[in-house]
Amino acid sequence: MVMVNTLVIVGVGLIGGSVAAAVRERGLARTIVGVGRHLATLERANQLGLIDEVASDPATAYPRADMVIVCTPVQSIAEQVLEAAGYVSPHCVLTDAGSTKQAIVERIEAGLPADRLFVGSHPMAGSEKRGPEHAHARLFEGRLVVVTPTPKTDPEAVQRVCEFWQAVGAKTRLMSPEEHDRAVARTSHVPHLVAAALAGSLPKELHYMTATGFRDTTRIAAGDPELWTAILLQNCESVLDGLASVEEYLRRFRAALNDHDAAALQDLLLEAKRLRDALGS
Amino acid sequence: MVMVNTLVIVGVGLIGGSVAAAVRERGLARTIVGVGRHLATLERANQLGLIDEVASDPATAYPRADMVIVCTPVQSIAEQVLEAAGYVSPHCVLTDAGSTKQAIVERIEAGLPADRLFVGSHPMAGSEKRGPEHAHARLFEGRLVVVTPTPKTDPEAVQRVCEFWQAVGAKTRLMSPEEHDRAVARTSHVPHLVAAALAGSLPKELHYMTATGFRDTTRIAAGDPELWTAILLQNCESVLDGLASVEEYLRRFRAALNDHDAAALQDLLLEAKRLRDALGS
Repeated sequence: MVMVNTLVIVGVGLIGGSVAAAVRERGLARTIVGVGRHLATLERANQLGLIDEVASDPATAYPRADMVIVCTPVQSIAEQVLEAAGYVSPHCVLTDAGSTKQAIVERIEAGLPADRLFVGSHPMAGSEKRGPEHAHARLFEGRLVVVTPTPKTDPEAVQRVCEFWQAVGAKTRLMSPEEHDRAVARTSHVPHLVAAALAGSLPKELHYMTATGFRDTTRIAAGDPELWTAILLQNCESVLDGLASVEEYLRRFRAALNDHDAAALQDLLLEAKRLRDALGS
Repeated sequence: MVMVNTLVIVGVGLIGGSVAAAVRERGLARTIVGVGRHLATLERANQLGLIDEVASDPATAYPRADMVIVCTPVQSIAEQVLEAAGYVSPHCVLTDAGSTKQAIVERIEAGLPADRLFVGSHPMAGSEKRGPEHAHARLFEGRLVVVTPTPKTDPEAVQRVCEFWQAVGAKTRLMSPEEHDRAVARTSHVPHLVAAALAGSLPKELHYMTATGFRDTTRIAAGDPELWTAILLQNCESVLDGLASVEEYLRRFRAALNDHDAAALQDLLLEAKRLRDALGS
């Protein structure tokens, strides 16, 4: 059962806390150590029983680690991985859980010592909530984790990272960082902008008229603005491309409405329904 | 408990069936009669125990009715109300459950005999599902029903319709048909277009990359294309106005991304989050 003697999790919020909970429930690590800048969050994670230790000094934690998973906001992942790389042993594998990959992986590969192992990951799970209080052991069950090796990545490290995510219940898929970022722009980042545009443009006096449809459609707009600003800026080009596709679809709706063209309108709605039905509930 | 001796429901699908279920659960009517063009749907509603009788000939049902609720797709509501008005007694109140009001109420008022009572209603409840199989007695509980009298509407009839919807658990609010249509354009019709644009523009090869966020955001795009085409065309002008507001918000996102303006991006996301948080889950 034990895959890792000492697992270090950097940033024990919703994602890091859920990794800890999943690892503990399945007995995959002997010791889970929490590292991070927010001592209060780490202490809460400790009190919640998610981690075994809080390492206030990373220099004491990293040298023992067999695996380090950096679950901080995207703008600090590269820095945290490179800091850890300065302490860990050569057999330790470093990974992350960031929602963007290209900028992060590039920065890390540019600074990583030659004998250190890093593989980028993105578990496609989460919620608009934050903090270790919302962590749960089944967050990754049945979900997809994209693992993003490059030509510089050690194949055995890729294998270890994939096996780790599979052990917490996820499916894994290999993709280049660039391919990953183009895909999540369409499936996650542009939907976030669109949900935010719907929510942000609704006049206050109409709040009471919203029903479940509006709430479903805008739910993700409750995500943390600071986290999302960093994600969107790190994936700016692909987000702009994806946004253009949605805007083009909206222009086709506008044209059909302007022309009172029922057939064109129904075709657009049918195309959308077919895709949506294929995704399941 | 009994408010209505004979209730006639025209169109016993999700909404009509849920009205029937709610009325039956609370014992609000002695007899519930189903009328409609789709005999198979009416027979299913009857087998499900939602209604007491299927009236294959409306001429036998309407004269007995104390209340008639037309729950058909928006494009046939006016016609069905006017047909019923030809048979009902002067004390019977006619209402509907259509998602648009202005076009429907105008057509009905233009054709309604002077001694017949009609009041427009829109229960803000439903789902992307269809058919009496998905009906449930609590669909209206805590939901808003907009009731849309005009200067021509009998005040006592307005009162009876409001009391009826309150009796099935809803809150009611009076609004003019025009005001209603402008509001639902923003809270329901434009969100439908936006969800459809997101779903319809996603390349097929990225389906497997979607997670709960994408599925929540696009859920309503699974709605019936024929029903939605009619709704959107009946509320065309207000939908185009509302769409322009969302497109403007998206343009502000685009500008902030193009300029790599983190502060502007975060402000837009924060404005959207504040509104979304205010709506609750």
